Amino acid sequence: MNKIHEECGVFGVYASETCNVASMTYYALYALQHRGQDACGIVVNDGGVFTAKKDLGLVGDVFTKETLKSLGHGKLAVGHVFAGTKGSVNIANAQPLVVNHVKGSMAIAFNGNLINKNELRNKLELEGSIFHSTGDAEVIAYEIIKERLKSPSIEHALVGAMKQLKGAYCIVVMSPTKIVAARDPNGFRPLCYGKTEDGSYVVASESCALDAVGAKLVRDVKPGEVIVIDAMGVRSMADHCGTAPMTSCIFEFVYNARPDSVVDGYSVHEARVEMGKYLAKKYPVDADVVISVPDSGNDAAIGYARESGIPYELGFLKNKYVGRTFIFPDQKDREDQVRKKLNPISSVVNGKRVVMVDDSIVRGTTSGRVVKLLREAGATEVHFMVSSPPFLFPCYYGTDVPDKSMLIANQHTKEEIRQMIGVDSLCYLDLEDMKKIATMGGKNGFCYACFNGEYSTEIPSPTTNKYEVKINIEEKTKRHL
Amino acid sequence: MNKIHEECGVFGVYASETCNVASMTYYALYALQHRGQDACGIVVNDGGVFTAKKDLGLVGDVFTKETLKSLGHGKLAVGHVFAGTKGSVNIANAQPLVVNHVKGSMAIAFNGNLINKNELRNKLELEGSIFHSTGDAEVIAYEIIKERLKSPSIEHALVGAMKQLKGAYCIVVMSPTKIVAARDPNGFRPLCYGKTEDGSYVVASESCALDAVGAKLVRDVKPGEVIVIDAMGVRSMADHCGTAPMTSCIFEFVYNARPDSVVDGYSVHEARVEMGKYLAKKYPVDADVVISVPDSGNDAAIGYARESGIPYELGFLKNKYVGRTFIFPDQKDREDQVRKKLNPISSVVNGKRVVMVDDSIVRGTTSGRVVKLLREAGATEVHFMVSSPPFLFPCYYGTDVPDKSMLIANQHTKEEIRQMIGVDSLCYLDLEDMKKIATMGGKNGFCYACFNGEYSTEIPSPTTNKYEVKINIEEKTKRHL
Amino acid sequence: MNKIHEECGVFGVYASETCNVASMTYYALYALQHRGQDACGIVVNDGGVFTAKKDLGLVGDVFTKETLKSLGHGKLAVGHVFAGTKGSVNIANAQPLVVNHVKGSMAIAFNGNLINKNELRNKLELEGSIFHSTGDAEVIAYEIIKERLKSPSIEHALVGAMKQLKGAYCIVVMSPTKIVAARDPNGFRPLCYGKTEDGSYVVASESCALDAVGAKLVRDVKPGEVIVIDAMGVRSMADHCGTAPMTSCIFEFVYNARPDSVVDGYSVHEARVEMGKYLAKKYPVDADVVISVPDSGNDAAIGYARESGIPYELGFLKNKYVGRTFIFPDQKDREDQVRKKLNPISSVVNGKRVVMVDDSIVRGTTSGRVVKLLREAGATEVHFMVSSPPFLFPCYYGTDVPDKSMLIANQHTKEEIRQMIGVDSLCYLDLEDMKKIATMGGKNGFCYACFNGEYSTEIPSPTTNKYEVKINIEEKTKRHL
Amino acid sequence: MNKIHEECGVFGVYASETCNVASMTYYALYALQHRGQDACGIVVNDGGVFTAKKDLGLVGDVFTKETLKSLGHGKLAVGHVFAGTKGSVNIANAQPLVVNHVKGSMAIAFNGNLINKNELRNKLELEGSIFHSTGDAEVIAYEIIKERLKSPSIEHALVGAMKQLKGAYCIVVMSPTKIVAARDPNGFRPLCYGKTEDGSYVVASESCALDAVGAKLVRDVKPGEVIVIDAMGVRSMADHCGTAPMTSCIFEFVYNARPDSVVDGYSVHEARVEMGKYLAKKYPVDADVVISVPDSGNDAAIGYARESGIPYELGFLKNKYVGRTFIFPDQKDREDQVRKKLNPISSVVNGKRVVMVDDSIVRGTTSGRVVKLLREAGATEVHFMVSSPPFLFPCYYGTDVPDKSMLIANQHTKEEIRQMIGVDSLCYLDLEDMKKIATMGGKNGFCYACFNGEYSTEIPSPTTNKYEVKINIEEKTKRHL
Repeated sequence: MNKIHEECGVFGVYASETCNVASMTYYALYALQHRGQDACGIVVNDGGVFTAKKDLGLVGDVFTKETLKSLGHGKLAVGHVFAGTKGSVNIANAQPLVVNHVKGSMAIAFNGNLINKNELRNKLELEGSIFHSTGDAEVIAYEIIKERLKSPSIEHALVGAMKQLKGAYCIVVMSPTKIVAARDPNGFRPLCYGKTEDGSYVVASESCALDAVGAKLVRDVKPGEVIVIDAMGVRSMADHCGTAPMTSCIFEFVYNARPDSVVDGYSVHEARVEMGKYLAKKYPVDADVVISVPDSGNDAAIGYARESGIPYELGFLKNKYVGRTFIFPDQKDREDQVRKKLNPISSVVNGKRVVMVDDSIVRGTTSGRVVKLLREAGATEVHFMVSSPPFLFPCYYGTDVPDKSMLIANQHTKEEIRQMIGVDSLCYLDLEDMKKIATMGGKNGFCYACFNGEYSTEIPSPTTNKYEVKINIEEKTKRHL
Repeated sequence: MNKIHEECGVFGVYASETCNVASMTYYALYALQHRGQDACGIVVNDGGVFTAKKDLGLVGDVFTKETLKSLGHGKLAVGHVFAGTKGSVNIANAQPLVVNHVKGSMAIAFNGNLINKNELRNKLELEGSIFHSTGDAEVIAYEIIKERLKSPSIEHALVGAMKQLKGAYCIVVMSPTKIVAARDPNGFRPLCYGKTEDGSYVVASESCALDAVGAKLVRDVKPGEVIVIDAMGVRSMADHCGTAPMTSCIFEFVYNARPDSVVDGYSVHEARVEMGKYLAKKYPVDADVVISVPDSGNDAAIGYARESGIPYELGFLKNKYVGRTFIFPDQKDREDQVRKKLNPISSVVNGKRVVMVDDSIVRGTTSGRVVKLLREAGATEVHFMVSSPPFLFPCYYGTDVPDKSMLIANQHTKEEIRQMIGVDSLCYLDLEDMKKIATMGGKNGFCYACFNGEYSTEIPSPTTNKYEVKINIEEKTKRHL
Repeated sequence: MNKIHEECGVFGVYASETCNVASMTYYALYALQHRGQDACGIVVNDGGVFTAKKDLGLVGDVFTKETLKSLGHGKLAVGHVFAGTKGSVNIANAQPLVVNHVKGSMAIAFNGNLINKNELRNKLELEGSIFHSTGDAEVIAYEIIKERLKSPSIEHALVGAMKQLKGAYCIVVMSPTKIVAARDPNGFRPLCYGKTEDGSYVVASESCALDAVGAKLVRDVKPGEVIVIDAMGVRSMADHCGTAPMTSCIFEFVYNARPDSVVDGYSVHEARVEMGKYLAKKYPVDADVVISVPDSGNDAAIGYARESGIPYELGFLKNKYVGRTFIFPDQKDREDQVRKKLNPISSVVNGKRVVMVDDSIVRGTTSGRVVKLLREAGATEVHFMVSSPPFLFPCYYGTDVPDKSMLIANQHTKEEIRQMIGVDSLCYLDLEDMKKIATMGGKNGFCYACFNGEYSTEIPSPTTNKYEVKINIEEKTKRHL
Repeated sequence: MNKIHEECGVFGVYASETCNVASMTYYALYALQHRGQDACGIVVNDGGVFTAKKDLGLVGDVFTKETLKSLGHGKLAVGHVFAGTKGSVNIANAQPLVVNHVKGSMAIAFNGNLINKNELRNKLELEGSIFHSTGDAEVIAYEIIKERLKSPSIEHALVGAMKQLKGAYCIVVMSPTKIVAARDPNGFRPLCYGKTEDGSYVVASESCALDAVGAKLVRDVKPGEVIVIDAMGVRSMADHCGTAPMTSCIFEFVYNARPDSVVDGYSVHEARVEMGKYLAKKYPVDADVVISVPDSGNDAAIGYARESGIPYELGFLKNKYVGRTFIFPDQKDREDQVRKKLNPISSVVNGKRVVMVDDSIVRGTTSGRVVKLLREAGATEVHFMVSSPPFLFPCYYGTDVPDKSMLIANQHTKEEIRQMIGVDSLCYLDLEDMKKIATMGGKNGFCYACFNGEYSTEIPSPTTNKYEVKINIEEKTKRHL
């Protein structure tokens, strides 16, 4: 509810033989759905003939049996789930982007955020390029195609194009005969690949998508690496590896990634359990139960309970039917929306001192309402444990954060926030503890910029939008209840 | 997945003043959605003018902002969620049923199963009655209206009609000026009522629906009681109270009811936690983690972990986007459907001895697949704790149980089942323990017939269906993934 | 546009062998669509198992390939197209009505209007009957079923029930083994039957539906006759024949029926051509072209042109895409709606003296706008020929006429109307001429009540509606552009 | 039915003040719907902010009240209806095309066919351009934008781009502040502009669209002319005028255009009436009635009847409800599809010698079925008058003609065709007569290439398609019943 949201998930498959790759991609996108709920798409490649379907909406809304059937069979496919920022949710920005160029067709799926998008676009426009979307993917497509004119292969073109790209990006490109995937030199966003028993290769934003199609994780794509999957198998073009320090996004471990995924060798669930444990070590409280705000606080709550010895309990029933189709007939109801989705289990919290665990506080309004529900259900004390440091700075690497003025931690002191939310105590995970936990995964190099403002790249200068185009105008209302 | 399912949830409201009662009913039905996912409906009563909307589908599919708006405002409303058995899911059976009769309009919402439906229907047909549906509600409507011709009020008509009805039923009737609700003399199905701060009264199958509309639970409707809500407030007509022993359905506590509901004074969550504790007491195992099969095993797993001291963990990630719209493009995928919804968290189970808790085993196929996932994820041992006794007998009181031949416990020994499911040990909650737990809620009198075959009423003789009518033929495919 | 509209069309088929009767019914309903655009339905009978689909909307909206397929095959089927009056358009009133009774299932499709509906309904309600709809069909169903209890067959039950029914009605009843059809003793509404080459029998409101399914017209059903179609073929039960004078609706020939239909032995097209001829004989004008208001004036315009010798021309282009989905984004546009559908062909009318022919004037507003278009396109004179007498009285026999206060001829003199519509001359067909034309079809006995107020039956006393129920609230906006 | 079809209609508006230009465009597209039924779109320009909606389907399917409202108000708008060839019907090819470039946004709507599309596209691709669609509009957009980099204005850029374009085209371009429209130097396709009373300017493919929005026709855009509409009013840039001989498409007068349109100063209806008259002069027959195959033969039939003195009659009732949603549940029904849409009026043709008039014969199959219907209805003779010469050659200028092998006149002699269709005589309009009629409109210069193979430009060499992309795969089934 009112959560920060990730912008996109990508998937590609090169099957060992012509088969229902649309179906595989469909399952994978379902597994990646948490990374983007605004639009989605699948492009199937059957011997160089590309068939595409993309639209606004959830995977389950966009793809029916008929649609999937009409995509036909093939050996290659790419898929995408899209989470847009305000103003960007329109069909023109849905991906994968499919373009034709001098060497044939190309599909591209993108996750991240280019720092220098505006500069690149301006340059391209001055050369006479035209744009159908407002997204980064089209800029990247141009850069790849420009390189393609002078490169021996699509993968060399991608390597060449990456010299122009600054910022966070994971790219999956499908040519008539290959899947090529790249991760930016900092490795901001996750990307991994795997193999199925029958020898098909898949590449995806998270390992949970590999699980969904029955593939085993081979390894993560390295920062700066380009991998090529074709009839010869997988090979690596590590051209940009090590050209920048690895600074992968810590917020993937806090919230973005699915807990059953393993990112850069580290179980997301375990990382979150550790966050809960560290909170318990540093901020012990005298309480009767530990509960989570489902589902974002589940893993850390387990950790807090285990470390503290206070029993873990189910404090809320989350109505699993409340989704996108849920509406508020009266405007005043909207303020009370939390109650429609979460209902406290009275017997668990009534007369109890409660430790409530969640992953982060963004605006603070939802947290305040959740706490109110607990109080009404009889909780005598509420201690709020947040499994990340205060959210203070914008992200330029693909996580959609509200304006500073909307970030409660940016506008108020911890004591003010405690009072606003109405809890007896409020504890954030220390940044230093978070750094310790982060390295427990075996790797160094994370981006903590949203917590400490230390950006590992140059950041974009503010720009104004020269033009504004709304295609098909179907921007959905806010979907993160 | 392949769960037993409840047949229906009911709701009624008498507001303190004309307002958006459609909106209140909408929220309540969302909270009761787990009791029926096949169809739903709302009828609003504005000064005697009834406006209805019902259709096949989930509450979120059937009701849009426009639909709710078109229902208008009123002081009274009734709502219904419907879970049909095979063959009964069609628009003609959707409720609330709205009929016109000599005294005006009447709407009726029903939960349960009449033992003597066929006898009553035959009798009515021989008098020239015609039926549009195949459901119990229409039979009851006729009985009420027949009584109404010679009764001073709708509530007296209902009291009179109840003399004819045998079996399990909760009924909410809306006349032009009243909400009247009744629970069968055995009290098989739950029914309670509450009051909002502004003096509106609501009656519902479960207290979670009261929470959803901001009402406080007043009390359960007693077995055999009829309550009347009108401009004078609530009053009771306890005509049939005590005419039969209370035998309320234990399966509501095992699976049907939502854990945040309080049924007959007993927290459903707490009852389930106790079931887990009793399992741990009687069947201790040497294991590393306790996990649940989400969400049906969540509460009992907490209990098992607490009693045993073995850490509770999140063994599975349940994909919350996998719902009704999820499809299997290839038939062979269907067999692997569990994996699309549940993914084990490897780090939790890999190399571990796992206690897996679920509420019941019906066919056993799903359980087998879930266990297979755990094994593939590296679990070294799997001990399956089932928080209810073996499911052996059909239910005649409104829970839709497959034919005996499909009930694994009816066809196989416990050891055979253990092998079929592929677990190291398999333990069911003892019926005697279940009876002890049941009485912890402060009341006696439960129906355990599905476990022990002891029915508290006569049971119906097998019949053949004289006619078969399919209206609007939109029977949805199986929805309990 | 703003036309009077017929209330319903009926169809039934008894095929020589099990086949796709749903498909036949679908074609027939398409041919009868002009008789009702508010709702439609098909019920297929496969060896006594009835499968039904009905919904609000046009035949093409309600029935898809999947829907028709799901209706399955059978030997018998009935179909219905429904045109409701304001307040009656809801799913509960859609037909065919399907009910179960003591002898099995029955489907009923009805066209007409019962004079004594309220009396019958009151009587039934006092016996404890309940009603789901507000339509005549349900009343008739009860009367048939009451008779069925003491009759040897469904056809005898229908014959018996007809003793109770007063007014205009054509009924097609489907039992598990028979199609039974009846026409009221006055023969107000048309009904005929035919036979296909392979020996299937069909009964329909108009012969154009027979053409659509490749059947040859055998004959009209006689006033008061009941025909039975079963495994033995067709047989007649002429029980009520001759018990009343034939007074079939003249307005079927003016507007309701399709011009390619033959009703009671008389070609509708030819009748209309005659109306045009009589107008030309009696009201010759000095003009350059004869044009029609498409499509309702087409046939009579041909007649006028032929008799007068003035050239027939296409004065308007009717935009065939303007249908139900056409909307008026701005309210003010609505006033100009005629122009969106009809555009004058300038070269035809510019500088010309125009004879414009239409079938009738109801409110007069549409005619006024059509004339305005002609004037703007340069017509120097407009002479308006109306191929029926002034519309003065309400119809109690199934044609939906606006309230007297809305009938322009009821409120104004002919000269006033001429000025309001803005024409140089205005001529109505004389009632005496209409009577002469009517008898040219070879039969006597027509109802001219809407023109002369002479009703051939008692007429209903005004009543108030005791209850009001809106089911599924999807009443469509006005559809006769 | 199985008619040749036009590829597209265009519309643009520059309103005198900010208003509901979406609504105006909606009405205009409804009037142009006959020019394209596969897709449509509207782009509104509000002070430089472009809002677009386009989709596959009819105008009435794509645009709802909500959609139109969400397009907002503005001063400028462009619209498009699209008729695709097989393989081109997908959302990526829907227009208007909206692109962003260095000077801002541009929308483009196109009707016609570029002869040198492939050459231009190859050249652009070699410069690194990427394409989202397979349509001509995107090629033109690139050419305009390339010119825009070195031109002082969008209109100069369009003038420059036209130097590259060969073939048939009408283009409406919308920049942030202007509507610019161009017609190719040969004037193959019609384009005209008009003015409303309140000073708004509109440009459209046909004058019927001007009528639909209440605008008066000012004049046709001249071949080779570019007109600019902006805050200053309309001005002409006649740069390419007279650089090629005018060869406007005669088939617009035969079939494509709506009869109420005036194209290049000539009433389409009058031209068709003349065609019928010439047929009557040259091919008099001894017959009883003249009928048309509705609606394509209506106008010429009037002409034939008038010249011959044989009475004009309504030979067929065309079911106006049979449209896109009409389906054929059984495959065998499909062969009989004509009967579902057209039903002969027996009394008109029974025992009669019939002259049947239609505009053209393409494959001949439909004509054959229509004739069969007449025979079955009792016509004793059928004389088929075709108001155009035999269709022999492909069109490269934007009319979608089947392959030569499918053109009956290309494969068979007139006598063979007569026998295949089953008529007593078959007469085509002579090409020389057609030429005489064409010049009666006051202008010379028509393209008769489909009849005589004399192309006024170079024609494209056959190419193979390098790539194939299907976007959103929703190609609708054939829509010209």
